[in-house]
Amino acid sequence: MEAQIIAIGSELLTPARVDTNSLYLTERLARRGVDVVRKVVVGDDQRRIAREIRTARDNSQIVIVTGGLGPTLDDLSREGAAEALGREMHFEPQILGWIEERFQRYGRKPSENNKRQAYVIDGAEILENPNGTAPGLYYSDDSGALMLLPGPPRELKPLFESECEPRLDRLPSPYSYYTHSLRITGLGESDVDQRIGPIYEAEKRAATTILSKPGDIQLHIRGRAETVEEARAIAEAVAGQVTDELGEHVYVQEDVGLETVVGRLLIERGLRLSLAESCTGGLLAERMSREPGSSKYLFGSFVTYDEEAKIAWLGVRRETLEKYSAVSEACAQEMAERARDAAGGPGKAVGVSITGFAGPGGGTDETPVGTIFIGLADDGETRIVRRQFGGDRGRNRSMASTTALDMLRRRLA
Amino acid sequence: MEAQIIAIGSELLTPARVDTNSLYLTERLARRGVDVVRKVVVGDDQRRIAREIRTARDNSQIVIVTGGLGPTLDDLSREGAAEALGREMHFEPQILGWIEERFQRYGRKPSENNKRQAYVIDGAEILENPNGTAPGLYYSDDSGALMLLPGPPRELKPLFESECEPRLDRLPSPYSYYTHSLRITGLGESDVDQRIGPIYEAEKRAATTILSKPGDIQLHIRGRAETVEEARAIAEAVAGQVTDELGEHVYVQEDVGLETVVGRLLIERGLRLSLAESCTGGLLAERMSREPGSSKYLFGSFVTYDEEAKIAWLGVRRETLEKYSAVSEACAQEMAERARDAAGGPGKAVGVSITGFAGPGGGTDETPVGTIFIGLADDGETRIVRRQFGGDRGRNRSMASTTALDMLRRRLA
Repeated sequence: MEAQIIAIGSELLTPARVDTNSLYLTERLARRGVDVVRKVVVGDDQRRIAREIRTARDNSQIVIVTGGLGPTLDDLSREGAAEALGREMHFEPQILGWIEERFQRYGRKPSENNKRQAYVIDGAEILENPNGTAPGLYYSDDSGALMLLPGPPRELKPLFESECEPRLDRLPSPYSYYTHSLRITGLGESDVDQRIGPIYEAEKRAATTILSKPGDIQLHIRGRAETVEEARAIAEAVAGQVTDELGEHVYVQEDVGLETVVGRLLIERGLRLSLAESCTGGLLAERMSREPGSSKYLFGSFVTYDEEAKIAWLGVRRETLEKYSAVSEACAQEMAERARDAAGGPGKAVGVSITGFAGPGGGTDETPVGTIFIGLADDGETRIVRRQFGGDRGRNRSMASTTALDMLRRRLA
Repeated sequence: MEAQIIAIGSELLTPARVDTNSLYLTERLARRGVDVVRKVVVGDDQRRIAREIRTARDNSQIVIVTGGLGPTLDDLSREGAAEALGREMHFEPQILGWIEERFQRYGRKPSENNKRQAYVIDGAEILENPNGTAPGLYYSDDSGALMLLPGPPRELKPLFESECEPRLDRLPSPYSYYTHSLRITGLGESDVDQRIGPIYEAEKRAATTILSKPGDIQLHIRGRAETVEEARAIAEAVAGQVTDELGEHVYVQEDVGLETVVGRLLIERGLRLSLAESCTGGLLAERMSREPGSSKYLFGSFVTYDEEAKIAWLGVRRETLEKYSAVSEACAQEMAERARDAAGGPGKAVGVSITGFAGPGGGTDETPVGTIFIGLADDGETRIVRRQFGGDRGRNRSMASTTALDMLRRRLA
């Protein structure tokens, strides 16, 4: 089955706003075997909205319209959809009741404009929205299903899952689906694709999606069969073969990031993480503190951007910096060991350091821009790796922090 | 004038990839008075691509197609555009020459597939791409201009600015435009809109766009007149009135962030920045180290996530933590002062601290989730502010770091 998504709103045609609802919807639809084949963004213009809905319904069974359900005169998705379907609208007192109740809770009264939200396309089902004033609408006929959903993600998401998905379940479909996700690091997208292509191509009952960020790849394997159990067995069999092929590069069998996996391992091992960062400027600590509850494993980070901070704060020896410079194996080693020791020492803490030239300036012939040293100090021998990245400043910093997290994961696992 | 943007690529129809080229293009087009009225994303399908181009050209004078110019058989933008225009394609040996040269530089040879990139739609101009193998194409006739640009942003952007914009300059337009940008912090979007709405509504020759991120607002004021000089005078007059109305909330009269403005002020004052972060986990340091050359003003940051790190690394007194807790004015003050002193002391360094409950856990009755204390220690009295944010963990961390940067900016200015 195929779907199209139409995002309505002139603000989505400005330079700073991007339609992210469609990413969520694409992911939810993919789980049930529905591919999104086209996405459109149009402004608040009834004629244009009607035209887009008509075109989309001519070509796909599922059409989802997001936004344009608010109370103002700019909000024209209801009117546009009615025009596209050639249907009238009627006033629904029940909806106005919900809206009045909602306003009452905040001690306010709905404005005259809110009444616009109580209009319903003839023949459409009303989807009650517990998180806002705009109800959704669901219309279905021989050409397929048309959904109108509010634009704010915190209204759209629960409404889609609780009201639309059960209705989509009732659309005739010969198959059941199950999606298994896994995450990969330390390999480029084309490497991964080359190595696992033969696996997923050989299993026609599974569809595989590769999504890549710098240093991190998400793999979604969607099995398709008559029952969910069979679909699950198919997806997991492909995941097993992929894991055999890629080995340790597969870092988790679900859709969570390296930060989460490393955090879990630290808790398991009863170790605290103590960092010493130079060129990443705090990015590694920022990543390791994103998850709620990270105080269970993150002790802290010395962001020693200046050489004097490396000496005064961390205790890196001045002669190390003079002899080898700050971008060196020796400096990375001292940084990692000092960080570990400042958080309880071996057995209690693990120290990780990053020093390098993120660019664009600062490289030398021997250590060009993009050279990064990462140190890892635990209760064994301190390990240092040197990497050469070729991206811009932001990408080099991102790759350095991801590489450090992966090194830590492998050491702890 | 109106434009439409068509992004080509099946990967843009997956849950993790979003078309960001259109944001850049929208911004560039807005500067010259061109509004984007519709954006479409379609997969790699020649018939669909042709249909989209035809529809877009029927309705808008400028149509920009991004992506689908690569060497693989999936890359079908050239073929789709030729079909839409009802034109043939021809082989252009000059392009193959460029491609061969490019490969030679990396000691490689183009594949057979790369020859596909040397095909040109009859009547189209070739836009040489110094950053990739795919040249752009520019086709123009009575219905308007059609541009085909490569998908990677680092290829698309320079190609658009150097090759497409001069050609757009030659399209007949009765007006000249000038855009003045400014940035605002410490006010919400609706506050800003309410206060400056009367100003920009009174000047019909200027169009104002408000783009907001948490704690930071970009304002683009586009003047329109017969000459660029007049357009500039109009835009700057509106900017002047906006600045008078919002006062110190306007932090810079160009489109750069707080990090850049604070960095410039630190260089001017000859001061180094030394940080002590708790709940932001390194985010403030990460932001202050994003710009190349930030080693000129960033000394470092103590990311003291754990209480023991606050004591052992920074020298916060244990009794302060016991008496007032880590989320307190007293703790923020000690953190800021210790950070300053660890980087040379008053007159040489300024210390900034952040401590708080980012959430979702950790609050108390007196200091609920979202409470953040920010300290600023220079050579005067240490200043502490308390803020109560109501967002999720990520937003609270972001707002805390932005508020700290703004406090620092005001103190240094």
